[in-house]
Amino acid sequence: MIVTLLTDYGAEDEFAGVLHGVIARICPDCRVVDLTHGIPRHAVRHAAVVLRNALPYMPAGVHVAVVDPEVGTERRAVALECDDGRLLVGPDNGVLSLAWPRFGGVVEAVDVSRSPLRLEPVSATFHGRDLFAPVAAELALGAPLANAGERIDPDELATIQLPEATVAGGAVTAHAVSVDRFGNVALDLGHEGLAAAGLALGRRVDVEIAGERHPAAFTRSFADVDAGDLLLYEDAYRTLALAVNRGDAAALLALTPDDEVRLTPR
Amino acid sequence: MIVTLLTDYGAEDEFAGVLHGVIARICPDCRVVDLTHGIPRHAVRHAAVVLRNALPYMPAGVHVAVVDPEVGTERRAVALECDDGRLLVGPDNGVLSLAWPRFGGVVEAVDVSRSPLRLEPVSATFHGRDLFAPVAAELALGAPLANAGERIDPDELATIQLPEATVAGGAVTAHAVSVDRFGNVALDLGHEGLAAAGLALGRRVDVEIAGERHPAAFTRSFADVDAGDLLLYEDAYRTLALAVNRGDAAALLALTPDDEVRLTPR
Amino acid sequence: MIVTLLTDYGAEDEFAGVLHGVIARICPDCRVVDLTHGIPRHAVRHAAVVLRNALPYMPAGVHVAVVDPEVGTERRAVALECDDGRLLVGPDNGVLSLAWPRFGGVVEAVDVSRSPLRLEPVSATFHGRDLFAPVAAELALGAPLANAGERIDPDELATIQLPEATVAGGAVTAHAVSVDRFGNVALDLGHEGLAAAGLALGRRVDVEIAGERHPAAFTRSFADVDAGDLLLYEDAYRTLALAVNRGDAAALLALTPDDEVRLTPR
Repeated sequence: MIVTLLTDYGAEDEFAGVLHGVIARICPDCRVVDLTHGIPRHAVRHAAVVLRNALPYMPAGVHVAVVDPEVGTERRAVALECDDGRLLVGPDNGVLSLAWPRFGGVVEAVDVSRSPLRLEPVSATFHGRDLFAPVAAELALGAPLANAGERIDPDELATIQLPEATVAGGAVTAHAVSVDRFGNVALDLGHEGLAAAGLALGRRVDVEIAGERHPAAFTRSFADVDAGDLLLYEDAYRTLALAVNRGDAAALLALTPDDEVRLTPR
Repeated sequence: MIVTLLTDYGAEDEFAGVLHGVIARICPDCRVVDLTHGIPRHAVRHAAVVLRNALPYMPAGVHVAVVDPEVGTERRAVALECDDGRLLVGPDNGVLSLAWPRFGGVVEAVDVSRSPLRLEPVSATFHGRDLFAPVAAELALGAPLANAGERIDPDELATIQLPEATVAGGAVTAHAVSVDRFGNVALDLGHEGLAAAGLALGRRVDVEIAGERHPAAFTRSFADVDAGDLLLYEDAYRTLALAVNRGDAAALLALTPDDEVRLTPR
Repeated sequence: MIVTLLTDYGAEDEFAGVLHGVIARICPDCRVVDLTHGIPRHAVRHAAVVLRNALPYMPAGVHVAVVDPEVGTERRAVALECDDGRLLVGPDNGVLSLAWPRFGGVVEAVDVSRSPLRLEPVSATFHGRDLFAPVAAELALGAPLANAGERIDPDELATIQLPEATVAGGAVTAHAVSVDRFGNVALDLGHEGLAAAGLALGRRVDVEIAGERHPAAFTRSFADVDAGDLLLYEDAYRTLALAVNRGDAAALLALTPDDEVRLTPR
């Protein structure tokens, strides 16, 4: 059985390593895959987007996501089963909520805040170690979800709303959703919205941010424009995104999540 | 069998990956867990604290720690067995010395500097690859400790002393011991010392550093104070620590390891 | 079977984790070793040097290297078999070319750009996920190389040339090749060239960069000089390198790859 981990723990400390140890003690034959531990601190929505994008490429298993600014408060901790059998484990703050629709939605959910599978004593600040990892490892070993906590109504699970691009007057008003380490900026826009606004592959497009216009090309990949030039492209998760060939679009455009981006065909 | 790795090699280079390769060549069925490779360069004491804290969460196995500013000199390299059977491998500079008391102390130790299990030729600068990883992998395969080197007196092993908090005049004088990537600062203070100084959960406390006083609350977790506020809390390893909710206490207070921190109830 | 990964994907994002997932779906029993994902972005030659250095320490398997500034263009993607049976997979931009001579050269190569083993649809920007990882996993499972793509002439594979040190007039003119996270600078110089120039272990040497001379010692390891002092040493891959004991030579000397370094015995 596979357990995947996604956290904002970073690589400097031993936190991610400790999760591996806790899981290996409970489930020595589990395969553990680090999706990433590099989520920006407390960036719940960013983590939710990454989980939604990446999980379809993971074998079905137990999928843990811990970005948890409210750790130690009364926020719930949950484990849930998707219609296709995948199990998701994490804080009930929406971090799991963009992923589960990809797997048929939630068919069963439990509150694991006081799970009998947790490690005692549970610390106030490291629920990844004391709660989420042991619950995930026991589920990976085959424990029924009902053994992990109290059943709750899946409709009460916290969810996250992404901004939504709109098309009007021949322009798309979109928003920055997430930025990767190369400075590529994913927008809240799939290719459906493009035709309506007259944007098409190979065409030129104006990218307007905070009142300033930047010329760009709508191309397939980075190297289709000169080094340093801005491009609009469909990224590897089929989301429209901005990039600079051999450069950093987020830095060039001073873009951060939720910033508005207007796209107009030239 | 499990091998755990803790180093200051970082993630930019291939050093940690090479350790995995060396171990996999000798012991293809070993499970290797990266505790962390993000120890600050040459921070032997910090590594010793992390190893002490994290190892109880690892399955018993062979535990390698390489933070080794004296590599290539006459400093000894050692492998040792704890009373509970865990094996520790690393330079004899104290990096292992805070961990072994947790496992019953050292029952046998060998000098592996010229171990017959090493990779030849041994480089002058990468003993992780040429000495520690192959020795650990052979031990994980079941080689007796005596085959790894010359027996030495466990009492001659290098040890590390941590600073020690003192209680006097209704105040605790403690010290910064380690800082994690969130800027949380662990002190040389367990909860034993607190009652004597009149510090109690839920009370307010003055944190005095370099003559300057900062008001703080002694709470269970970060979100018990407002964003940006300072808190004293018992961290996940049951050590008292300073943090800023959604902020960076080490940066705010300009704290580095060994700095003095006076705690006074208000 | 083992699959090793070397990329410039970094640790912040999920890219490396997604490769693990793709491989685990195809080949659940593969062992995957992260050589490193910390190659500087687009640093093809640096990656080629790291792969050449590190691969001999890896068990024979399928070795993937993805540093791919031309992704999405017509650059070829290749898989190849070395004389000793190792399989290398990556873009045809030279990133593999310094490694294969270590394993007897290339005996068979295929163009996998339109491999039947790829994931459909292939994105324009993430060939690691859609092309290189699935091809590697299928090869690790035992697929014949001929099933992965169209056979091509190994002599047509792209290669990389490193700068070459020269000895003249009692001095060596060398070049910076790569810099590790500690600021140690590997030169294009093995120990063969040293005797000709009168450089010998234990002797002092002048290091001249951009017209400025820096005194250094030619020693075995860092701690053979005082903290802050410059040394020339044979690194763990038997390449001559510059370092500062407990410091950062690249920063001190403002050295970047390809910079000229003149070494003269004092």
